Amino acid sequence: MRTAICERLGVEFPLFAFSHCRDVVAAVTNAGGFGVLGAVAYSAEQLDTELSWIDAQVGGRPYGVDVLVPGKTEGPRSTIPSEHLAFTTGLLQRYGVPYAGTLGELGERVTARGATELIEVALKHRVGLIASALGPPPPQMVTMARKAGVPVAALVGTVEHARRQVAAGADLIVAQGTEAGGHTGEIATMVLVPQVVDAVHPTPVLAAGGIASGRQMAAAMALGAQGVWCGSVWLTTEEAETPQSVKRKMLAASSLDTVRSRSRTGKPARQLASAWTAAWDSGEDSPGPLGMPSQMLLAESAMAYVVRAAERGEAGAAELANYFVGQVVGQLDQVKPARRVVHEMMEEFAETIERLSRITE
Amino acid sequence: MRTAICERLGVEFPLFAFSHCRDVVAAVTNAGGFGVLGAVAYSAEQLDTELSWIDAQVGGRPYGVDVLVPGKTEGPRSTIPSEHLAFTTGLLQRYGVPYAGTLGELGERVTARGATELIEVALKHRVGLIASALGPPPPQMVTMARKAGVPVAALVGTVEHARRQVAAGADLIVAQGTEAGGHTGEIATMVLVPQVVDAVHPTPVLAAGGIASGRQMAAAMALGAQGVWCGSVWLTTEEAETPQSVKRKMLAASSLDTVRSRSRTGKPARQLASAWTAAWDSGEDSPGPLGMPSQMLLAESAMAYVVRAAERGEAGAAELANYFVGQVVGQLDQVKPARRVVHEMMEEFAETIERLSRITE
Repeated sequence: MRTAICERLGVEFPLFAFSHCRDVVAAVTNAGGFGVLGAVAYSAEQLDTELSWIDAQVGGRPYGVDVLVPGKTEGPRSTIPSEHLAFTTGLLQRYGVPYAGTLGELGERVTARGATELIEVALKHRVGLIASALGPPPPQMVTMARKAGVPVAALVGTVEHARRQVAAGADLIVAQGTEAGGHTGEIATMVLVPQVVDAVHPTPVLAAGGIASGRQMAAAMALGAQGVWCGSVWLTTEEAETPQSVKRKMLAASSLDTVRSRSRTGKPARQLASAWTAAWDSGEDSPGPLGMPSQMLLAESAMAYVVRAAERGEAGAAELANYFVGQVVGQLDQVKPARRVVHEMMEEFAETIERLSRITE
Repeated sequence: MRTAICERLGVEFPLFAFSHCRDVVAAVTNAGGFGVLGAVAYSAEQLDTELSWIDAQVGGRPYGVDVLVPGKTEGPRSTIPSEHLAFTTGLLQRYGVPYAGTLGELGERVTARGATELIEVALKHRVGLIASALGPPPPQMVTMARKAGVPVAALVGTVEHARRQVAAGADLIVAQGTEAGGHTGEIATMVLVPQVVDAVHPTPVLAAGGIASGRQMAAAMALGAQGVWCGSVWLTTEEAETPQSVKRKMLAASSLDTVRSRSRTGKPARQLASAWTAAWDSGEDSPGPLGMPSQMLLAESAMAYVVRAAERGEAGAAELANYFVGQVVGQLDQVKPARRVVHEMMEEFAETIERLSRITE
């Protein structure tokens, strides 16, 4: 396909696949798309291992790495108030999930320092794109990527943020609508994308949020995007590491079954509505979510217990279990190989452009 | 343009313009689109006068009428609790607007009975479409329209409602995303439209929500819609009866300045965020909005005072003033004749299809 971004990144079909699973990244890249590995859950050593594996799979085809650089956080290592720990323990107990309250180390990497380490590792591999969610890319990240000749992409949910990201050195903007999974703003993709495209011209824009089919990809490109950034659609693929208990909920969910909640990270993020989000967001005894990264630290620690119990088939745990996913979850009703998802999108995309041409003949 | 709906309704360019203003309806129809008059604010006699005027303007070109048929309401004539009347009076007082608390007669027509009267009037004129928002079309409405050979359109925000509307006899579905102005659901246009198109096939679908430009129209049609239904974009046209104080707020607003609130009708409706929505939705002393039609009766009565004061240039009143509008309000920054809006959409639509064809060549 001929968009500037295809030429710049050497990608055949401008479908960017965000996934925490290396198998999805490799499969999409090999199918002609552009896989982007979400690196937030990895240590520098683990990331090195994952990228070496991907390098071996994709035979030089381009792929990217995404790190979470939060704009504003509470600081590197906030403490969890005992009230919040007690609420979490009590909540899990009500649903039959024992919780030891070990907070783990996750919060550490959601800082500019943690992100920089991951970027250093990424740049040692053959990555073709570094993406940063949440905040403007730190100057050091831009400098490092520029030196390595690797473009920097930034996710935004408003026109104002898009302008700020470009000023901070982003080479590519991902305009993400409110219907997207994960951290997301309030403006829908249909409204956001054309505004961002016009505001940052000639910087190329990818559209995110509400895109999991060829028709939706064609719509995004009609809005002026040069490609699309998809996350949710990979969560129900064969390759995805999504726990079976969560995958089942996603396959059964309608588009009404997601909620934008602070309960998993401290910032508004769209996810499956579950007993967890309900308890934090509207439970009478809820202390309210903490900020980022404290709430993320607390939630990830608790959710590890929840998911283990849900995988053992415990019904209470299954009610609590959830994960970040967009409103397109209502379209996902079948487990498919990631390669097939790419091929179906390519086919439907081509059919859609063909149909639109016929309408206007 | 060649879509089934163009042929069935005899329309050149499938841009449906919902407006309460007869001048907009006539201008859009004469420019090659399809104007739809929102009839909820009219008595049967007034509607008759408006439609006679439109008939005289459009020379036989097709246009439609929209009535508000609520699915569930509190009953025909609920009383307003004194607490709610006192809150309203106090709120307006705080912003310097005297309020006499006369409730008027508006609530009367938001019933199936009121809607039927309006439809009887409409069918005496040369209307080419009857649309019903909120509930499934009442059987009598479908029977009357069928007898007159006029198709019935129904607005929906979920797949489930779309199926129900088709079962109740709707000939055309308007799938409206959460970014739309007025009564709207939670699912974004990008996600909702393809799901509705697939669920009600072969019933034709128009897309609504987030559409105010040719790019957005092309995107909607990529999603599978046979045309688009736009409301917000007409509110800042030259012809629109939007009060100047509200028009100014719309021209200045960004896409972040709307809110989905029950404060104007009792059901969630997207509108400009203002001191009115803030006070009802999150004011400490708010009694919470009533149901429909009580809240609508109360709000419309109060807003009449607010708008009169705002038009006189009173600053407090201008803070309260608002109106239903979608997230596209962020794109509206210039007053234009409705005809020019249609022509610009036609032009950008054609350019977009052309651009998409080139990309895939």
